Amino acid sequence: MTQPDDMTNGMGKVICDITISIDGYSAGLDQTEERPFGDDGGDGSGGMLHAWMFDTPEENRAEADQFAAAKAFIMGRNMFGPVRGEWDRPWNGWWGEDPPFHAPVFVLTHHARDPQQMDGGTTFYFVTDGIASALSQAREAAGDGDVVIAGGATAINQYLAAGLIDELQLHIVPLTLGAGTRLFEGVPQLKLEQVRSRAASLVTHVTYRVLS
Amino acid sequence: MTQPDDMTNGMGKVICDITISIDGYSAGLDQTEERPFGDDGGDGSGGMLHAWMFDTPEENRAEADQFAAAKAFIMGRNMFGPVRGEWDRPWNGWWGEDPPFHAPVFVLTHHARDPQQMDGGTTFYFVTDGIASALSQAREAAGDGDVVIAGGATAINQYLAAGLIDELQLHIVPLTLGAGTRLFEGVPQLKLEQVRSRAASLVTHVTYRVLS
Repeated sequence: MTQPDDMTNGMGKVICDITISIDGYSAGLDQTEERPFGDDGGDGSGGMLHAWMFDTPEENRAEADQFAAAKAFIMGRNMFGPVRGEWDRPWNGWWGEDPPFHAPVFVLTHHARDPQQMDGGTTFYFVTDGIASALSQAREAAGDGDVVIAGGATAINQYLAAGLIDELQLHIVPLTLGAGTRLFEGVPQLKLEQVRSRAASLVTHVTYRVLS
Repeated sequence: MTQPDDMTNGMGKVICDITISIDGYSAGLDQTEERPFGDDGGDGSGGMLHAWMFDTPEENRAEADQFAAAKAFIMGRNMFGPVRGEWDRPWNGWWGEDPPFHAPVFVLTHHARDPQQMDGGTTFYFVTDGIASALSQAREAAGDGDVVIAGGATAINQYLAAGLIDELQLHIVPLTLGAGTRLFEGVPQLKLEQVRSRAASLVTHVTYRVLS
């Protein structure tokens, strides 16, 4: 399942990249359009989970650059945007006119929709035939570059359970949520190898390789 | 709840110190006397969880020294030893004749028993009247030193829920257990401050101060 270190197969890695509370949640209970991170210990915006990104960007430049270096992304439906009667009207999701991906983004959904091209190189593709199809399309788009599964935890858990992840890039932040959407929920036991670990003031970044 | 930095009240800190899998478990399901860590991804001995201690002691000397510097310890019944018809015969628990605490250890239990003095300065005291009483006795014994709640997660969770912990010292290891005894289970949301974070080859050590 893991890639050989010399990448002789010419494929990049499949990396999941997500911010979690120290008790493993990527969002709290009772998510709504106005409070997309639900009961997150704050206003529901996920601000406390992601303070490391927004309040201390210089400290965490390496992790942001690594994320941005991916050549294709996959995300769950809720990470694209809130449910608004699904696709009955134009809607660009959470990400504004110039999303921070600058690459193809494959959105896992049950509702078909035409691709949506944004400024800055991001195009959202809507994939209705499952996680393996989305990964196949993302790998094709990424060429020999990496594919990042950007969240949420529900999407990542599906990929982990299917044995399709090479590497976990976790950003662990100092709060607990107690309930909500939890990384590793329903995923069989994993043996991992710690590849890197780095502390910044508001977060600890940990990179694990999936061994089995 | 947290101690002032200058410790003007003359008391040490109450620190919980525990090793957890990246999904937050300190032990797997189905713990038995022969497999005290249950379904831990290995032989049930907790060997994979604690490989950082046993396989790479030099790398992790600072954390071992910090643990050993506590002037009193508290632990749950299962961390003292397996259930053997409770106290119907002499039994020193898991720890052998010279336990690694070298200080008073207060064991939370429902079964009264006389204190048990071991070699090397460790005496086990058995506390039947609850976590607050155990902490009070441990604080008294520790003087101005620190009290460490050494586990398991069930004992720590009781102290966290009661707002009695100043600091978390977590040793996060690269495996997932998927089920078992989970740190933070049933504990209300916590705001924490990352005080330190340090990576060794088999573990990431994170120290958090409990803010609320």
